[in-house]
Amino acid sequence: MSGRNSTAAYEALKDRFERLAALSGAQAVLHWDRATMMPEGGAGARAEQQAILSLIAHETLTAPEVAGLIDEAREADGLDPWDRANLHEMARLHAHATATPASLVTRLSRQKSAAEMVWRKARAANDYASLAPELDKLIALVREQAAAKAEALGLDPYDALLDGYDPGRRSADIDVLFAELESFLPGLLREVMEHQARGPAALPIEGPFPVALQEKIGREVMDLIGFDFAHGRLDVSHHPFTGGVPDDSRITTRYDEADFTESLMAVIHETGHSLYERGLPPEWRSQPAGRARGMTIHESQSLLFEMQAARTESFIRFLAPRLKTGFGGEGPAWEPENVLRHYRRVAPGFIRVQADEVSYPLHVMLRYGLERAMIAGELTAKDLPAAWNEGMERMLGIVPPDDAAGCMQDIHWPSGSFGYFPTYTLGALAAAQLFAAAKQRHDGIEEALGQGDFAPLLGFVRTHVHGKGASRTPDEIVSEATGEPLGTAAFKAHIEARYLGK
Amino acid sequence: MSGRNSTAAYEALKDRFERLAALSGAQAVLHWDRATMMPEGGAGARAEQQAILSLIAHETLTAPEVAGLIDEAREADGLDPWDRANLHEMARLHAHATATPASLVTRLSRQKSAAEMVWRKARAANDYASLAPELDKLIALVREQAAAKAEALGLDPYDALLDGYDPGRRSADIDVLFAELESFLPGLLREVMEHQARGPAALPIEGPFPVALQEKIGREVMDLIGFDFAHGRLDVSHHPFTGGVPDDSRITTRYDEADFTESLMAVIHETGHSLYERGLPPEWRSQPAGRARGMTIHESQSLLFEMQAARTESFIRFLAPRLKTGFGGEGPAWEPENVLRHYRRVAPGFIRVQADEVSYPLHVMLRYGLERAMIAGELTAKDLPAAWNEGMERMLGIVPPDDAAGCMQDIHWPSGSFGYFPTYTLGALAAAQLFAAAKQRHDGIEEALGQGDFAPLLGFVRTHVHGKGASRTPDEIVSEATGEPLGTAAFKAHIEARYLGK
Repeated sequence: MSGRNSTAAYEALKDRFERLAALSGAQAVLHWDRATMMPEGGAGARAEQQAILSLIAHETLTAPEVAGLIDEAREADGLDPWDRANLHEMARLHAHATATPASLVTRLSRQKSAAEMVWRKARAANDYASLAPELDKLIALVREQAAAKAEALGLDPYDALLDGYDPGRRSADIDVLFAELESFLPGLLREVMEHQARGPAALPIEGPFPVALQEKIGREVMDLIGFDFAHGRLDVSHHPFTGGVPDDSRITTRYDEADFTESLMAVIHETGHSLYERGLPPEWRSQPAGRARGMTIHESQSLLFEMQAARTESFIRFLAPRLKTGFGGEGPAWEPENVLRHYRRVAPGFIRVQADEVSYPLHVMLRYGLERAMIAGELTAKDLPAAWNEGMERMLGIVPPDDAAGCMQDIHWPSGSFGYFPTYTLGALAAAQLFAAAKQRHDGIEEALGQGDFAPLLGFVRTHVHGKGASRTPDEIVSEATGEPLGTAAFKAHIEARYLGK
Repeated sequence: MSGRNSTAAYEALKDRFERLAALSGAQAVLHWDRATMMPEGGAGARAEQQAILSLIAHETLTAPEVAGLIDEAREADGLDPWDRANLHEMARLHAHATATPASLVTRLSRQKSAAEMVWRKARAANDYASLAPELDKLIALVREQAAAKAEALGLDPYDALLDGYDPGRRSADIDVLFAELESFLPGLLREVMEHQARGPAALPIEGPFPVALQEKIGREVMDLIGFDFAHGRLDVSHHPFTGGVPDDSRITTRYDEADFTESLMAVIHETGHSLYERGLPPEWRSQPAGRARGMTIHESQSLLFEMQAARTESFIRFLAPRLKTGFGGEGPAWEPENVLRHYRRVAPGFIRVQADEVSYPLHVMLRYGLERAMIAGELTAKDLPAAWNEGMERMLGIVPPDDAAGCMQDIHWPSGSFGYFPTYTLGALAAAQLFAAAKQRHDGIEEALGQGDFAPLLGFVRTHVHGKGASRTPDEIVSEATGEPLGTAAFKAHIEARYLGK
């Protein structure tokens, strides 16, 4: 095979992935619009549009000539390390896609849309019975996909799904990390609760907090952190998310006029996701090597800003007086110490997205166990509520009052995302490790946060995380940025320092 | 060829056109989002997404097997008249698409996006010099397309473009109708102006009219006319338009806090477009026979509601007290007679979308002449402003103060739409003819409008226009609904009755 033909093969692949990037960008707009703008009656037509675009993308990625082009491109001379990484990603995406038959791709896309729309109503009406049959249909299709991928990739079915969210991750690794967490976290949670009980209680911060003001302050904080509104938007959806494409990044939040704290932190969280997308290498925008490196790294970026940086005492001291002025608040409840107490309150609760960072991993471990059972065929939708409630009691010692606050709270399963949940906690571990490394390598990161200046922290992750795109594995990114493989030590040290003063 | 194979061929075509409908629906969302929601920095990525989807649609429609499938499907037994019309439309769309090479489709899509984005800034800054080179590049590509289509369809280049907007329409027919208009309209315009000058002047309706109130009242009027908000939205864009798909119809307007009248009528206009889309036969949603029948019929539906129905004395008598209450207005300016004077004021002006219905056709005739010259290669962007101003002086006796109020006012040319403008006036002729026929066939249409009830009028067009989809030609729809071929008589009678009391 000549070098020239091999180079041409690689160029042909790049053209094909440019087309895939455009399709994926179009899908991102359709998805964002559905969650933020679309009238309910548009659901059927939208599901059809999304299914057809999924099918076209699948056909583009699995066309008969692609395997040959990949083989041929591997012989090409003159590919630099980024090209090599790009080709490696192309092959990985191709292997995932060819594992799933086209007809299953369409059925999955349609059922995801259908189940998600039912979920929106079912959750609002606390009507799990209407969701269960749709969820069972979806689980059956996801299991079919998991089995097909397992066969093609030589992995366990759950691992085959997990690999789609966090490349290279295996449940065996997660089991080790989660076992470590389980060995210390319940005890640590009790210790934190006791320590907290000995201190002063947080004074309530009295509302109401009008949506327009919350949005204004949210935008100001986004601006501080480095969000560029010429390349993005802030809107409202049921479940906050980051959508769009790197040059047009759309984040969402939701507002509660009785409590601004949750929405504001959701904004900071999604801004962390958005900055990651925006910081991906621009010269690789439409190629696989220029994409985000999976959901563990993505979550590490949102939590780095939300949990690590924005909840430091330095930043809260900067933020609190601005919140007080912005909302026209008065009295001791607005003092930094009290705001800090709100943002660091630890209390087991029903809702994952409202959970403190100490109990959050327990929510994830519950879901991880349940979704592994669903993919293994050992748990159906009918039995999910009971299994959920039993797990909540075992993990957190509390049982939700209804399924809306229980197994229906998250969009992930109704939208077909199985294998996604563990990345939240892996991301939390990575965030703690990255923040510790950033502070160790660069003096003055906390001092800058005290001035509302996120630039030094952003600079660290721009270089060590964002700019690497998908050229390294998730674990390589963490190891190279922090000098250590992904582990639980930094997270444990962070919890002990922040909540026990150790 | 066996009937069974022919039937299979038709079914295969239907599957293909279902895919095309989904692609077109996705494009509609991307287009709407670009005009209403997208941050400026997203333009590059969006242009790429739109270009790739255009290319994929073009490939889907022009794939080598399609011509054979069409030939084979023509032999199918058991196709009912709708299927026959559907197949006819498939063949027409295929002929248009195969006429344009794929590489040209992509270049056109990219240049349309580029020129439109430049136009948005250039118009705002009255900077025609920045638009001219982009427009010339675009005209060159459109001429390339016109020549290719002319060759393939056996038409004159301009007619080949026109046929894409108004199937079966030829410039020779337009020349006849426009010559008739030219024979009476300038004289009629003078007569109306003189008649108007003899009556009382309209009292100014004093603002300001807050955007939020205008939007609220606009939504109430949309609701009256029959807009279903479970299947659509109202938003803001530079140039009002109707986008989306029949089950998710997105209309836009723009607001001027000093004058609510224009925005409100724009809302009614776009609602007319939207109701047409929504009334297309649901069982043919994703097939060519279920699509709108070109822009002349589309415009006839918007003008039927905006110009014919909403400006009747009956409806204005219903509307005026509600406007007064809604805006908290006081005094004689809010009396129905005075509101009617505002909505029927005739005065030659610079801006087409603000023009009264008497002078409007003169704006269209100007553009028709200029775009024919551009497509014929007889007029370039450099010479457009001078030709525009000369034409304005000749047609309307006035010269715009700058290009923003002159040749840069419309989005059509910068977005690559040549052959579209004449359909505005053909639509106005059709609207007058349809409204006259509706009143003749159904008693009480005006009385119902006096109660704010559009249902009888809507019922007439649901049956005679909307429900026919693309199963008939535009001229067949008009003839069958009104008993007459499309002409200028009803329009002339309407102007004389409304403005001269004849």
